[in-house]
Amino acid sequence: MKNRCLIWLNMAERPFRLNAGDLKLVKSLFRGEVKAVRSERAFLKELPSATHVLCWEFHQEWFVRAPELRVLATPSAGRELLPTEAELPKGVKKYHGAFHGAIMSETVIAYMLAWCRGLYPAYDWQRKGGAANLWPRVALGERCFSLVGTKAVILGYGKIGHAIAEKLTALGVDFTGIRRRNIAALPEAVAKADWLICVLPSDTGTDDLVNAKVLRRMKRSAVLINVGRGNAVDEAALAEALRRRRIAAAFLDVFKKEPLTASSPLAADLPGLFRFPHGSAFSPSYLPRFIRELAARGAFRA
Amino acid sequence: MKNRCLIWLNMAERPFRLNAGDLKLVKSLFRGEVKAVRSERAFLKELPSATHVLCWEFHQEWFVRAPELRVLATPSAGRELLPTEAELPKGVKKYHGAFHGAIMSETVIAYMLAWCRGLYPAYDWQRKGGAANLWPRVALGERCFSLVGTKAVILGYGKIGHAIAEKLTALGVDFTGIRRRNIAALPEAVAKADWLICVLPSDTGTDDLVNAKVLRRMKRSAVLINVGRGNAVDEAALAEALRRRRIAAAFLDVFKKEPLTASSPLAADLPGLFRFPHGSAFSPSYLPRFIRELAARGAFRA
Repeated sequence: MKNRCLIWLNMAERPFRLNAGDLKLVKSLFRGEVKAVRSERAFLKELPSATHVLCWEFHQEWFVRAPELRVLATPSAGRELLPTEAELPKGVKKYHGAFHGAIMSETVIAYMLAWCRGLYPAYDWQRKGGAANLWPRVALGERCFSLVGTKAVILGYGKIGHAIAEKLTALGVDFTGIRRRNIAALPEAVAKADWLICVLPSDTGTDDLVNAKVLRRMKRSAVLINVGRGNAVDEAALAEALRRRRIAAAFLDVFKKEPLTASSPLAADLPGLFRFPHGSAFSPSYLPRFIRELAARGAFRA
Repeated sequence: MKNRCLIWLNMAERPFRLNAGDLKLVKSLFRGEVKAVRSERAFLKELPSATHVLCWEFHQEWFVRAPELRVLATPSAGRELLPTEAELPKGVKKYHGAFHGAIMSETVIAYMLAWCRGLYPAYDWQRKGGAANLWPRVALGERCFSLVGTKAVILGYGKIGHAIAEKLTALGVDFTGIRRRNIAALPEAVAKADWLICVLPSDTGTDDLVNAKVLRRMKRSAVLINVGRGNAVDEAALAEALRRRRIAAAFLDVFKKEPLTASSPLAADLPGLFRFPHGSAFSPSYLPRFIRELAARGAFRA
């Protein structure tokens, strides 16, 4: 039987949309026919003959239309996007992208260093303009500190957490990794930390883990970073903590409800809040990394 | 004869001003009397009995008032702040801070990652506000890329250049170091680079080294970073290159004339220009690093 790879990766965000170079890359690595589609309709039409599927999301009811399927792969690390292991038909193997750490760890370090080195206040002065803001040297001197020697808690110490830990170590930042099995250590760990970095997946059991109690234990100078999933943070409690300056800042790439809407407590203009639209893994190398990783894991030989 | 350390480190910028902790640190490391002053007048009054002097700047004509002097030290890396080796009286040894790389390399990486990871456009959207700017996901997807795998030229490959190179290596950035002896390689090296990082001291012979010709050789997507001295950049040529978008961005911490004034071509509102007020080494650890380094180099035992 001929191998046939069906690709439906067509999000609006450029890094998440298959381009000509990505397609060429799959063709160079996959032995068999490769077909890329751009709509659910075209995808479902091609599904019956597909042995390998690369897509963002796959619904369990589609398996009946995919009798030849052996490999189901998504670039996303989000477990909610594919059927569970138990739901997989016999002979079908699923793959989630595991390459995100290389990109996301750069984003986390970007947040940390932008905060340490006063990039935001410097930009504020520059944008305000006027002669008085041309040389805010004394003011900037109050806002800069060194990353080296600070302490971080990494909440969610899996693949991505490890990639972050590797960069932190290279930059001289001390860290504690918190996994589900030692979650009880969280309040005590955050009390000593300059950074609380959340990279938890959206699996159940992590709702509002970063709540008022945890936020109260953090240093006033501490910074929260969330590049995992929004459910882990009690958003009302965080908004309150920022408003009362109980913590210094929050860099948030993910939210309870996405896209973020004006009704979220974090849609307000809060001191020390830096918002990002779930793009910590954006990079032109996103899909090439996914494709090369699938090949390296043997998914194209299955 | 009793050792007597006279300290006059009293700039307006907090990181450059001796505080109680810094003074305590000197006292714990220096065998002898330690005296801190806050004005030139008090400094000159105490100078006759000083064996060790820690100050920002020392004028050659002051040596006649310092018959006991053996060690003259400034935290600054700027060679213009102390008399030359030839001007030193016999028996006086001078020290310049050599610790800046640890701090400045964080600043350089902060600029690079803020640019790669879209921190500035995200902040612009957040500040603009309004429902349409709450979730600029597609737009951010066009602005993010990965630092790993990019190429840098480090112009001025001394102590600070090496500290930057070390962090670049840890983050997977390829680099070429350009020193005075291979300066002829600059135009060719910048043609392949994503980053041109200047860390040249203000010594003669480097005026306008980064001129229209060099800027023309750079990629349109390339970014200039200057944390060395302002004389190395032809400011009119750089302003023109930014205005015409011949290069993507410039992060400038230093300028030909400091403090920067409205008459500088770089005081204008130019696309891709990010200005900083000569603070790449700002950190509460600045003076502690200087003091510990002096002790480690044996300056307090001299």
